[in-house]
Amino acid sequence: MTVTLRPAESGFDIFAGEVLVIRHRADAPALFVGAGRPLVDMYRGNYFLEDRVDERIALREASVAGDTVTLSAGGRALLTLTLRDDALHLEALDPALNRLWLNMVGEAGERLWGGGEQMSYVDMAGRRFPMWTSEPGVGRDKSTLLTFQCDRDHRSGGDYWNTNYPQPTYLSSRRYALHVDTTAYSCFDFRDADAPAIEVWEVPARIELFAATRFADLVTQLSTRFGRQPLLPEWAYSGAILGLKDGANSFDRMEKIIAAGAVVTGLWCEDWVGLRVTSFGKRLFWDWKANEARYPHLRQKIAELNERGIRFLGYVNPYLAVDGSLYVEAAEAGYLALKLDADEPYLVDFGEFDCGIVDFTNPAAADWFADRVIGREMLDFGLSGWMADFGEYLPTDVRLFDGTDGMLAHNAWPTIWAEVNARAIASRGKTGDALFFMRAGFSGVGAYCPLLWAGDQSVDFTRHDGIGTVIRGALSSGLVGNAYHHSDLGGYTSLYDNVRTAELLMRWSELSAFSPIMRSHEGNRPDTNLQLDGDAEVLAHFVAMTKVHAALVPYVAELCRGAAATGLPLQRPLFLDYEDDAGCWGVETQFAYGRDLIVAPVIEAGAARWSAYLPAGAEWRHVWSGETFAGGDTVEVAAPIGQPPVFYRTDSAHAALFAGLATL
Amino acid sequence: MTVTLRPAESGFDIFAGEVLVIRHRADAPALFVGAGRPLVDMYRGNYFLEDRVDERIALREASVAGDTVTLSAGGRALLTLTLRDDALHLEALDPALNRLWLNMVGEAGERLWGGGEQMSYVDMAGRRFPMWTSEPGVGRDKSTLLTFQCDRDHRSGGDYWNTNYPQPTYLSSRRYALHVDTTAYSCFDFRDADAPAIEVWEVPARIELFAATRFADLVTQLSTRFGRQPLLPEWAYSGAILGLKDGANSFDRMEKIIAAGAVVTGLWCEDWVGLRVTSFGKRLFWDWKANEARYPHLRQKIAELNERGIRFLGYVNPYLAVDGSLYVEAAEAGYLALKLDADEPYLVDFGEFDCGIVDFTNPAAADWFADRVIGREMLDFGLSGWMADFGEYLPTDVRLFDGTDGMLAHNAWPTIWAEVNARAIASRGKTGDALFFMRAGFSGVGAYCPLLWAGDQSVDFTRHDGIGTVIRGALSSGLVGNAYHHSDLGGYTSLYDNVRTAELLMRWSELSAFSPIMRSHEGNRPDTNLQLDGDAEVLAHFVAMTKVHAALVPYVAELCRGAAATGLPLQRPLFLDYEDDAGCWGVETQFAYGRDLIVAPVIEAGAARWSAYLPAGAEWRHVWSGETFAGGDTVEVAAPIGQPPVFYRTDSAHAALFAGLATL
Repeated sequence: MTVTLRPAESGFDIFAGEVLVIRHRADAPALFVGAGRPLVDMYRGNYFLEDRVDERIALREASVAGDTVTLSAGGRALLTLTLRDDALHLEALDPALNRLWLNMVGEAGERLWGGGEQMSYVDMAGRRFPMWTSEPGVGRDKSTLLTFQCDRDHRSGGDYWNTNYPQPTYLSSRRYALHVDTTAYSCFDFRDADAPAIEVWEVPARIELFAATRFADLVTQLSTRFGRQPLLPEWAYSGAILGLKDGANSFDRMEKIIAAGAVVTGLWCEDWVGLRVTSFGKRLFWDWKANEARYPHLRQKIAELNERGIRFLGYVNPYLAVDGSLYVEAAEAGYLALKLDADEPYLVDFGEFDCGIVDFTNPAAADWFADRVIGREMLDFGLSGWMADFGEYLPTDVRLFDGTDGMLAHNAWPTIWAEVNARAIASRGKTGDALFFMRAGFSGVGAYCPLLWAGDQSVDFTRHDGIGTVIRGALSSGLVGNAYHHSDLGGYTSLYDNVRTAELLMRWSELSAFSPIMRSHEGNRPDTNLQLDGDAEVLAHFVAMTKVHAALVPYVAELCRGAAATGLPLQRPLFLDYEDDAGCWGVETQFAYGRDLIVAPVIEAGAARWSAYLPAGAEWRHVWSGETFAGGDTVEVAAPIGQPPVFYRTDSAHAALFAGLATL
Repeated sequence: MTVTLRPAESGFDIFAGEVLVIRHRADAPALFVGAGRPLVDMYRGNYFLEDRVDERIALREASVAGDTVTLSAGGRALLTLTLRDDALHLEALDPALNRLWLNMVGEAGERLWGGGEQMSYVDMAGRRFPMWTSEPGVGRDKSTLLTFQCDRDHRSGGDYWNTNYPQPTYLSSRRYALHVDTTAYSCFDFRDADAPAIEVWEVPARIELFAATRFADLVTQLSTRFGRQPLLPEWAYSGAILGLKDGANSFDRMEKIIAAGAVVTGLWCEDWVGLRVTSFGKRLFWDWKANEARYPHLRQKIAELNERGIRFLGYVNPYLAVDGSLYVEAAEAGYLALKLDADEPYLVDFGEFDCGIVDFTNPAAADWFADRVIGREMLDFGLSGWMADFGEYLPTDVRLFDGTDGMLAHNAWPTIWAEVNARAIASRGKTGDALFFMRAGFSGVGAYCPLLWAGDQSVDFTRHDGIGTVIRGALSSGLVGNAYHHSDLGGYTSLYDNVRTAELLMRWSELSAFSPIMRSHEGNRPDTNLQLDGDAEVLAHFVAMTKVHAALVPYVAELCRGAAATGLPLQRPLFLDYEDDAGCWGVETQFAYGRDLIVAPVIEAGAARWSAYLPAGAEWRHVWSGETFAGGDTVEVAAPIGQPPVFYRTDSAHAALFAGLATL
């Protein structure tokens, strides 16, 4: 038994291994129940939630019998807690109770990592993190002009905690992990170091605890709990995947990039379904079938590409535009989610166009989408992969086939959406070969989704929405069960006067070269932003970085096998491999790419030199200069464009490969 | 007995007159108690408060015995409520309880007016209003660039509810009023029309109820409750008070303005104490004595002015700059508030300079400030009035002489500060002659402060921080016991690129002409902003408006006598005199200046015409055109510069005076 319940005078303690996690006493209760009414305000995927708490009742009276505690207030039993299978099973004894608050034991200096894919802070200690899948925000920093403009004009500026992929799971540096088994809105309020707190907008069925003596073992346990990804297909990481959405012209542009020397393994044309132009930029036509007008003879062209070892990828999401043919098909079959107050499809405003929601709680609708849409229109057509976009927008006032309340279905949707995609791939026997990538997520998404992408960074170097957030996204999501992560090379969102610089594109190429998947994106406004093939220096630099990426294949293949065995992510916090060096615990702008590489991407503009922390316990060699460093210290190296700060263990089995990166 | 308590099945009702105000039932309790811990974050008078609510207990069990209700939860008695003298006297039965929540009965369409001096909304229905005296904010509208810049750079942007003068008192259009007798933080949460709610960060001793059949009678009751101002001295409203802070040069500039024809009754030189230049602008030297270097021979000059019927006014606030002589005097006498954790004065950062806080809870310190500072340095020196600035900054972590907790002293401070000023004036026998004006306030301030000023508007026409907010400030504060209100003619705060236009100055002259006090201000950055004497057209317009202002003296004198008798404010909501016309209830951009004038100042830029609502029940004549209108409708009139939209009752005893305004 890893988790233990120990009665105490006027209360009880709960331990994960030997770590005291919950201390409940009559005069300092850890558990509270109550009742609240949520206020939900949503605008195009940006949610503004607030709770009207009518009651919050301290459960001061605890009666322990074996592994069950009955918790009461004023002599009235309100909650039972039963320890079973290393989890706290909770049951509310009054159906009016719809809120739970839990205070954990905390320590000054304790780190609390995870929370799903967190773009601003991997260590959540000292801050508050709502867990609600949504648009990630543009700017995400109330002190920037871009955030202000987006808030003012689109309510979309967001904040540090907004994420496409929240997950109510954390790992403590006290060497335990906790997961709240709920899809309700919840919140990790870790502002108070003495009492990190969790709030849940239901009484959740279970709170799970994990204990281990090493951080890496906690990650393995969580990966086992939430699902292990299949091996990443080698085609996907053996070269770059070019993101172009230029219609048939995309093929010509690809050829020129290949001719320049780039190693290319895939062509990703999200506009394979056709375009729709809105004030946000060029959007896609959300009717999931090849658009012959924009991509003539696409099926044949895909076959030709495949013969050259180049895969073709597309785009899909779980919504259907009302002006598309699939919407009509789904509506007639009754596959769309309905309004609460009328027997008609619930339409969602996605910014100047409306869409129906395929109701995946209806097994027939999910089957239809997996087989008829993804299976027939995409896999059978020849697609090897796609962006499986969205999943965050499920309205809370929707009527679903299986009767699930929208407040509970909202967070569940990304995982359900991932399952539909995975099912489609499995139905064609393509698991581990076809590849889709998602930005939305929630607990368990990794069991279905083989690859995350970091969502829609702004095309800049800003702290909370720029290139650097990709690293935090990889580190945090990797801790809770997601081995594979990547980003839009070049960033995505260009609004107001914010456009890509050549420097940004090149720094992002460097970051992406050391990610499992190196996939470019033209962004939301391709015409007004610099592209990889729009500047000779940028293209040459990209070519060089694709060669670095391709050269890493043997090492990455080994990391993939490791991920399949242990659940350890490829890009990971330094503290997983170098736990005994506490200097690694706070590093959030670098990652270990496996055990043997430390990557410290340049994520600021104008940097000629860069600092990196190198873990103690190994000797490290700078890839470009060959300079050798003892670990356990911060070092500074030259970091010109083309030489991303990367260091390898001199005792690595792959040392020769790494040394060769400088002379490709 | 106006207020009655009526037992009911499983609860009770409380009526104010015949209006059901509180309905408490076991299944729908109105009263909740609990415990919370405040988080207080302050930066230069801008407060960021948050509550950690540990418990919120519904008091479902009510036992009524006579006029006392005992309220319990889980069989445990937690609160008693006793109706006595038309107030609900509350007593917490557990000392750990430090929060109270109360839900009132509400109705759709009900208006809830008051809240102290509210600059954005007189009717608070549908919104949430924290009651905490603070800086008012610059911009006060999260959608404006100025607010963003101030938030980003100074944390000072504020929001619609920020005010120097909050007061937990409201009047309902259902014809009752409610006051929470507390100085703790409280909040009127009126978002839910069915259940307007009050939150208090203590269990307040009393909640007072008032009932009347007419709104005006409610206002009289509140004025009686909170204190009636002395008659405004006639010198103060018989001409303009020129605000100049140009050292000795101020006198020359005044003479030129008088020579241009302006009717001038006072010269206000806030820089009489000398200047300090900071990045915000020219500030004052906070050592409250005449500065001989900046104003040579001031005592003699004041005497000369007085002989000409012109008063001299200065400036004071309750802080002492550490580099001034009075600070040393106060510190040596032990008159300064101390730090919690050290026996040394608590210093407050006012923006590039630090000040001590005179501890008015120490009677000797209050006496010293009233006699030694205001008495000797100001009144005895010849000053007839002053701006009694600030009062909002008392830190919550301060140690006071009488042991009051800072969380309770903070809101009390403005009224205490007002009392010190009033005491000083009374000590020289000058009550009703010397005049001070405050922006800070809280319940009861009107008993001591003879005149409010509307605080620091930005020098613009913006909805939440511009000229128009003055009207709402007058209307709301007038409802809860403040008969006299005015503003800085021209506005005050000029930050970033926001500077005064000639149009703004002229529109503000028009507004001020129809206020009891017409006082100009050079603003925080005089050198970069247009001044009254900086443009011939602006000066000529000001001269004309001073003549209008002076011409109104007989009428204003009558309004002052009315205010002394009934507590009705001079500038008041139309619904006080015209209650039976419900069309008046929502008018917040106009005021009745007494019963006989309707003033609808132009508060937008570029307006050539203007609309005004005229109450039913009277016939109205437009001052400038002589056009006559039946009441009960919105009318539109020409509103060129120089012709502020003003209408008088044709049956007014002062009709001839009003008609003459057009031909002065």
